[in-house]
Amino acid sequence: MDAIHSHKSIRKYKDTPISGPILQHILQAGSRASTTGNMQVYSIVVTTETSLKEQLWESHFKQPMVKQAPVILTFCADFNRFNRWCEQRDAKPGYNNFLSFITAAIDALLAAQNVAIAAETQGLGICYLGTTTYMAQRIIDILKLPKGVVPVTTIVLGHPDETPELTDRLPLEAIVHYETYQDYTPETIDQLYSEKETSEFYKKIIADSGTQNLAEVFSQKRYTQADNEHFSRTLLQVLAAQGFMQQ
Amino acid sequence: MDAIHSHKSIRKYKDTPISGPILQHILQAGSRASTTGNMQVYSIVVTTETSLKEQLWESHFKQPMVKQAPVILTFCADFNRFNRWCEQRDAKPGYNNFLSFITAAIDALLAAQNVAIAAETQGLGICYLGTTTYMAQRIIDILKLPKGVVPVTTIVLGHPDETPELTDRLPLEAIVHYETYQDYTPETIDQLYSEKETSEFYKKIIADSGTQNLAEVFSQKRYTQADNEHFSRTLLQVLAAQGFMQQ
Repeated sequence: MDAIHSHKSIRKYKDTPISGPILQHILQAGSRASTTGNMQVYSIVVTTETSLKEQLWESHFKQPMVKQAPVILTFCADFNRFNRWCEQRDAKPGYNNFLSFITAAIDALLAAQNVAIAAETQGLGICYLGTTTYMAQRIIDILKLPKGVVPVTTIVLGHPDETPELTDRLPLEAIVHYETYQDYTPETIDQLYSEKETSEFYKKIIADSGTQNLAEVFSQKRYTQADNEHFSRTLLQVLAAQGFMQQ
Repeated sequence: MDAIHSHKSIRKYKDTPISGPILQHILQAGSRASTTGNMQVYSIVVTTETSLKEQLWESHFKQPMVKQAPVILTFCADFNRFNRWCEQRDAKPGYNNFLSFITAAIDALLAAQNVAIAAETQGLGICYLGTTTYMAQRIIDILKLPKGVVPVTTIVLGHPDETPELTDRLPLEAIVHYETYQDYTPETIDQLYSEKETSEFYKKIIADSGTQNLAEVFSQKRYTQADNEHFSRTLLQVLAAQGFMQQ
């Protein structure tokens, strides 16, 4: 539980490698996560080779931690293994559709969070890479992912070389609804975002970004409509190419 | 870590309620999970009222644990709050697309697994409901989820009234690949599935199902092509209706 409550993303790593037994223990924790029907339709690709890490670093927008961290874990929605098993048993698989991609992505993501917590419990640091879904086709090429396999998230893993503060979160009432969804009023929105908007940390970010406010930092600079639409189209193309859009 | 390695889905619950402080502690654990850009684009709907639980039970294929467990947690991809905040700050949001749904779904799922582990650490039991994505429209109606919000998974939560055995898993080498993806041969498929296929537990399931083998149990009985295609179409309709398919 301490690991969950004290989680901080780590963006600077020592070059110390991770021992084999510790890595096995962490991956084993991933494999204990719940999966739909216990089908385990996901895979974890463990990458440590410098040349491969360099290619992954390029596809993850050249974030320095991807080169620095000794281990890169790419979590993939994976029906390839299951399909092969079915075909080998003369049982026609019916998993070339969108629902099956979502099912497999859920499996991969629950396993990823187990891995993250297990790693932090061992004193290691992690950081998730949201760029995985943006650059899925490039990652498929680098990691040689066959049809039926789509990367959904990545964790870089290593010994921390920084001790950042705990990151802010919205008050719990911002994300929790009781019984049914209670929609937000203009007043509750102001109230829920006020701590964030008045913090010195974000004031500096707003000033540096040349925007008027924090909502603009996100919507006009960091996660823009044009980028989101571009990456939506490419991700849907990837799902089709990897065999998940027959329905 | 113990909670991770000893995780078992619980399908029978006592009717003891969960105390407020423990529930808060568990939900707080959810809110510590990593989210893309720390945007926290997810929500958790906590349902305990009998009449609402009964409606959820119906939509989750009438699995008894949904009525039995005192608390139902529905984890939703949620850009509604973020969009409202942006609009209130005159910052045009660009999140009505597929990538944004996937981003928000990832946030929701990592938070869900934190909640699951935190609950188990408190001695509570949980079970994930894969039916959430199949029945998303019905759940949207019951929980009054507005545009921008899509349920992606559900956890039932309560005091266990059974102590099941640890569920089998494929050997770790089935799900882990080193450096790049190492595709499976017919021999490795046979080897990786042999323990499962020869277990007494699955032999009984095969006999009861009237199929030839375990792969048929899954592909012809439990997760069929016709069902998968039907639920793929309905889920894509939900994404469009909830405002995630403009790209």
